[in-house]
Amino acid sequence: MTTRLDDLPLRDDLRGLVPYGAPQAPLPIALNVNENTHPVPQEVADDILDSVARALREINRYPDREFTALREAFADYLGHGLTAEQIWAGNGSNEVLQHLLQAFAGPGRTAFGFAPTYSMYPLLTRGTGAQWIAGERAHDFTVSPESAAAQVAQVQPDVVFLCAPNNPTGTPMGLDVVEAVYDATDGIVIVDEAYQEFAPRDERSALTLLPGRERLAVSRTMSKAFAFAGARVGYLAADPALVDALRLVRLPYHLSGLTQAAALAALAHAPVMLGMVDEIVAQRDRMSATLSALGYTPYDSATNFVLFGGVDDPARTWRELYDRGILIRDVGIPHHLRVTAGTAEETTAFLDALASVGSKV
Amino acid sequence: MTTRLDDLPLRDDLRGLVPYGAPQAPLPIALNVNENTHPVPQEVADDILDSVARALREINRYPDREFTALREAFADYLGHGLTAEQIWAGNGSNEVLQHLLQAFAGPGRTAFGFAPTYSMYPLLTRGTGAQWIAGERAHDFTVSPESAAAQVAQVQPDVVFLCAPNNPTGTPMGLDVVEAVYDATDGIVIVDEAYQEFAPRDERSALTLLPGRERLAVSRTMSKAFAFAGARVGYLAADPALVDALRLVRLPYHLSGLTQAAALAALAHAPVMLGMVDEIVAQRDRMSATLSALGYTPYDSATNFVLFGGVDDPARTWRELYDRGILIRDVGIPHHLRVTAGTAEETTAFLDALASVGSKV
Repeated sequence: MTTRLDDLPLRDDLRGLVPYGAPQAPLPIALNVNENTHPVPQEVADDILDSVARALREINRYPDREFTALREAFADYLGHGLTAEQIWAGNGSNEVLQHLLQAFAGPGRTAFGFAPTYSMYPLLTRGTGAQWIAGERAHDFTVSPESAAAQVAQVQPDVVFLCAPNNPTGTPMGLDVVEAVYDATDGIVIVDEAYQEFAPRDERSALTLLPGRERLAVSRTMSKAFAFAGARVGYLAADPALVDALRLVRLPYHLSGLTQAAALAALAHAPVMLGMVDEIVAQRDRMSATLSALGYTPYDSATNFVLFGGVDDPARTWRELYDRGILIRDVGIPHHLRVTAGTAEETTAFLDALASVGSKV
Repeated sequence: MTTRLDDLPLRDDLRGLVPYGAPQAPLPIALNVNENTHPVPQEVADDILDSVARALREINRYPDREFTALREAFADYLGHGLTAEQIWAGNGSNEVLQHLLQAFAGPGRTAFGFAPTYSMYPLLTRGTGAQWIAGERAHDFTVSPESAAAQVAQVQPDVVFLCAPNNPTGTPMGLDVVEAVYDATDGIVIVDEAYQEFAPRDERSALTLLPGRERLAVSRTMSKAFAFAGARVGYLAADPALVDALRLVRLPYHLSGLTQAAALAALAHAPVMLGMVDEIVAQRDRMSATLSALGYTPYDSATNFVLFGGVDDPARTWRELYDRGILIRDVGIPHHLRVTAGTAEETTAFLDALASVGSKV
C-alpha cells in the first residue's frame, strides 16, 4: 500500500500545495528562466577550478562561517564605499531573502510587494510563516512614488520587496520610489536588484541610498549577469546591524567552501564575466523591436528578458514554440508571455519561430 | 551614529540572541567540531575536480532542481534496497533537518529530543517557529525504550529527534528505542545517523526500520566519515511521500551544480573515502583508554569523538589546552569536555597535553 502525502502529519497550511518550479525540459533553446545563455569563459573557468582545487585540500574542515574573503570581494565589486561588514551572502538570492524574512517577518508579521512581481516573494513569505500582501501597479506595470508610498503607508507591512527592475515585467524603478517607500514605513525595505547589471549604465543603484538608511537592504545575484545560476550565489548590502540580524537566523556554515572558492574566483574576473552584458542587452532590444514589428506589445525592460502582451492564447503560443524546440515562460499574466534574451542565434531562432506561429490577438 | 541591532524592527523572539557558533580559532590541532581530520585523498580530489570542471561548462544554467543523479548515488551508497525517490539532500544535514521541521513542525507545533543532544535541534526548531521540548536521559546518557516511549507519549510532539549515536555524548542508541518511540507517537521520527559510520560494523542502521514506517526519516551527512564538512552535504532516506513533503518547503535549486558534482564524485569513491574510518575509530578507543588511565571518565562512544567527565574546571582545562595549541569543545555539561578523535599524531598531542595539564577532580 502506497503512502500518500495526505497520510502524513503535514502542516495544514501546506496541504494541497505543489512545489514551485518552472518546467525543466531539455529543449535546444531555453529562454524561460532568465539565465545568462553564455557559458562562463574558459579562462575564468580555469581560475575557478584552481580555486576549487585549493579549497578541496581542506574540504574535510568546516568552511569559514563568516566567508570573510568573499564578503570583502563583494564589497570591492559593488563599490560605493561599501565594506565587508555591510555584506551578506547565501545559496542564491532566494536564501538571502529568506534570511531577511526570518529575521524581520515570520509568524504574525507581513511582507508586501507590488504585483505582478517575482513569484518567489509570496512563497518565501509564507514559507517563513508570515502573511503576503500584494499591492498594485499601473496598467503599464510602473508604480509612482506617490502610489507606492500611499499603499505602503496603508498596509504597514513589516517587510517591503521592491524588485528593481521588476521580474516578470522588466519594468525599471526609479530611486524616487525607493525613497518614498522607505519614508512611508518603519519596516525593512528590500530592493531586489537581481537584474541591475542589465539596466542603462547611467542608472543609479539603490546602493547609493544606503547611507543613513539602516532599514534598507539591496540584494543582488551572480545568477544573471555573472552567468552563475548553477553555482547559487546571492548577496546583499545593508547596514552592519542589519547584517548582524541575519547571523541569528542563518544555518551555521551555510556557504560551502566550494561555493566560496568558486564565487571568489569569478568575482576576480568581473570585467570578463560582465562582458556578455552589453551583447545580451543588444539582443534584448532587438527582441523588443521585432516583437513590436510582429504586432506584439513588449514592455520597457531594464533586464535580460522581455514581457510582451497582445498574445491571443499564451498557452497555445507557448506550446507551439515548445514544439519548435524553444522554451519560454507563461508567467500567468493573461495575454502575455515572457522571454529571456539569448545569444544572437537563440534570439533569432525565437523571433523566427514566433513569426511562424502568428497567434497574436 | 552607529545603528545597533535593537534599533531595527527585529522579531521579538530573536532579541537578545547570539548566533550559533563553535569558536573558530586557527590552532594547529583542532579537535573541537568532530571533523574528520584526514584530508580527502588526492586521487579522489582529482576526480572531484574533473566532475566540477564538467559542471562549470553549464554553470550559467540553473542546476537540476531534483538532483536526480545524486539521489540515485545516495540510494546506491546506503543500500537496503533504497531507491532515488526515497532520498532527499541539502546543504548540510542542518538544512535537511530544517526542511523536515518546516514541513512537519513550524508555528504552533513542537519538536522533542533527549537532552543533552545536538545543540542545533532547539535552534532549528525555534528558527522555524516551533517550540522545543527537552526530554531526559539516564545518568550515563543512555535512554531505555520504556523511558523513551513514556516521555514521547506524554509530550506528544509533532517531531522527535533521535540522535543515534548521540552528539555530544557519543552514546549508541539501539533500534529498540527507535521502534518504541515510533510506536508511541503519531508524529515524525527523525533518526540522525550523522556518526553512524563510526559505530561497530555489526550495528544495524535505522535504515532497516524504514519499510512500513512512513513517518520515519533517517538522516546522514558527508561531513564526518566522508571528510566533506566543507562541501556541506547532508541527506536522508524516508518514504517517497515524506520526501515529497520536503519539496513543498525547499528553496528551488537549493543544491548547486558544484555541490552535486562534488558529492557525486566523492560517492563514487566511497570505499576510499571511508578508509579512514577504522583508523579514526582506533584513535577514539586509544583516547578513551588513556583518558581512563589519566583518571577521567570517558563515556562509551560509537562516534568519532569522546565525551569525558571528571573535569574539575572545564573552562580552565579548555583554556590550558588552547594555550598549548589544541582546540577541543566545552559543550556546557558541568565537569565534562568533548574531544574529536584526530590522526594518531593529533590524538597523541592531545593526550600528552592533557596529562601535563592535570586538572582532573
